[in-house]
Amino acid sequence: MIVIPGPSSPELGKKVAEGLSTRVVPVDHRLFPDGESYIRLRGWVKDEEVIIVQTTSPPQDSHLLQLFLMARTAKDYGAERVVAVVPYLAYARQDKRFLEGEALSIDVVIRLIEASGVDALLTLDVHSQTILERFRIPTKSLSAIPLVAEYLRSRGFEGAFSLSPDKGALDLARMGGGILGGGYDSLEKVRDRSTGEVRTAEKALPVEGRDVIVFDDMISTGGTMALAVGLAKRNGARRVVAACTHPLLLGRAVERILGAGAEEIVGTDSVPGPRSPVSVAPLLVDALRGWSP
Amino acid sequence: MIVIPGPSSPELGKKVAEGLSTRVVPVDHRLFPDGESYIRLRGWVKDEEVIIVQTTSPPQDSHLLQLFLMARTAKDYGAERVVAVVPYLAYARQDKRFLEGEALSIDVVIRLIEASGVDALLTLDVHSQTILERFRIPTKSLSAIPLVAEYLRSRGFEGAFSLSPDKGALDLARMGGGILGGGYDSLEKVRDRSTGEVRTAEKALPVEGRDVIVFDDMISTGGTMALAVGLAKRNGARRVVAACTHPLLLGRAVERILGAGAEEIVGTDSVPGPRSPVSVAPLLVDALRGWSP
Repeated sequence: MIVIPGPSSPELGKKVAEGLSTRVVPVDHRLFPDGESYIRLRGWVKDEEVIIVQTTSPPQDSHLLQLFLMARTAKDYGAERVVAVVPYLAYARQDKRFLEGEALSIDVVIRLIEASGVDALLTLDVHSQTILERFRIPTKSLSAIPLVAEYLRSRGFEGAFSLSPDKGALDLARMGGGILGGGYDSLEKVRDRSTGEVRTAEKALPVEGRDVIVFDDMISTGGTMALAVGLAKRNGARRVVAACTHPLLLGRAVERILGAGAEEIVGTDSVPGPRSPVSVAPLLVDALRGWSP
Repeated sequence: MIVIPGPSSPELGKKVAEGLSTRVVPVDHRLFPDGESYIRLRGWVKDEEVIIVQTTSPPQDSHLLQLFLMARTAKDYGAERVVAVVPYLAYARQDKRFLEGEALSIDVVIRLIEASGVDALLTLDVHSQTILERFRIPTKSLSAIPLVAEYLRSRGFEGAFSLSPDKGALDLARMGGGILGGGYDSLEKVRDRSTGEVRTAEKALPVEGRDVIVFDDMISTGGTMALAVGLAKRNGARRVVAACTHPLLLGRAVERILGAGAEEIVGTDSVPGPRSPVSVAPLLVDALRGWSP
């Protein structure tokens, strides 16, 4: 077994290799002046099980292409099997057609991943579990929320109330609550019938003077998270933390969430950055050890 | 037969539809805040032969993904056959391995195009004809150089000398010469044995006081083209024009080429922009009319 830390996840890839005590095959990556990716594997992959660690956070399309190039090149050089570890799976939110003629983009991405020679895929907190059923190759999605909750517990948030910003993420609040102990609940998004606008319904929460952690799978532009943080504060919460697995934090997301009253924003290195103190490496290592897809 | 003008080639797509007198199925395209492409076909494609016009100039990876999304969606909605018209085919220059472990990127892109449901591909002045042999689907590459030469002839360059910047592009100079009449030749690139640097070998050309057109398949950063223009000027050329099919014109390419003494830069709408006065639509229309792949 060898690990290739891809250009989008160099540090995480190295940590996974350390955890598995396996050899690293480094990859040379650069962009040509026209923007095309150049990929070169710098080691032997023949007859090996190859783990490629490559998240597909923005720029998604380029990170996807790099994944395809690495997977196919590993196969070209005789890799026995390629396991793609894609902590954040791009296009997962485009999993339904709302209007006639829309692309079912995640299905296209899945077919491309398979066509590039990937034999199994490991991802984290995928937007909807039904996505995994559309793969023909074996897949697994794990949740990094327990790791995030453990991190917060170790930093003084034991007993905090766990909250999800909508019903779809209730499982995440339940997981957080299981570790932090202080109970959990979810908010609800409602669509205004006249304006069509989506907002978070007001709700009374038992959080007066208590700490609250809002758990979501991802934070994109931060709108949903900011609404949940604001609602917790209006319910009298003491400290509020915005927590997630995939901190994309686009545009003014950080300002919006802190502006709504959050104490801090905590994510994982699924999407590397300054708000990613929690490493998902131990989770991935455990999953890869016990998994023979 | 219907035509879908893709997000990278909206004008060219419409011209192709006009030339074929066929219906256009418009495509809605926007980027989500995170940078993911959204694609929606706005018309009926069932049982149709669908021509998707989508060049893959920079940003190549996003233009490729959009092509994959459009092709698969057309198939999802029952298109009988999908013909991809990709005037500029990205990654075509990564067609050989120079070092152990390098990705054979064009092969990966070819497999992805096929996996997305494309049944035939039409391109222009592909970097190397051998690339086409690697497709399993029918393909065709045409040259737009005759159109460029015709354009220049109509603008006062009849009798100009046609030059290619290296031996690989000699055919282009020959085509240009066939239309402009004033003879043709190619320059030669040589690698300095001590420094490894590639330069254009000096050469005496019969261009004293005459107009010269330098023809290449593409202009990327303009280095090669600027050297050829400079050499023609040192040979006493009157006006020199830098001509190509794919005017990528990256970074300071325009300044470099004009700075070397070129009168103007002429390309085609394979890569839309201010230096693309020649439309390849008539060429594509002719090819699509006579082609039953």
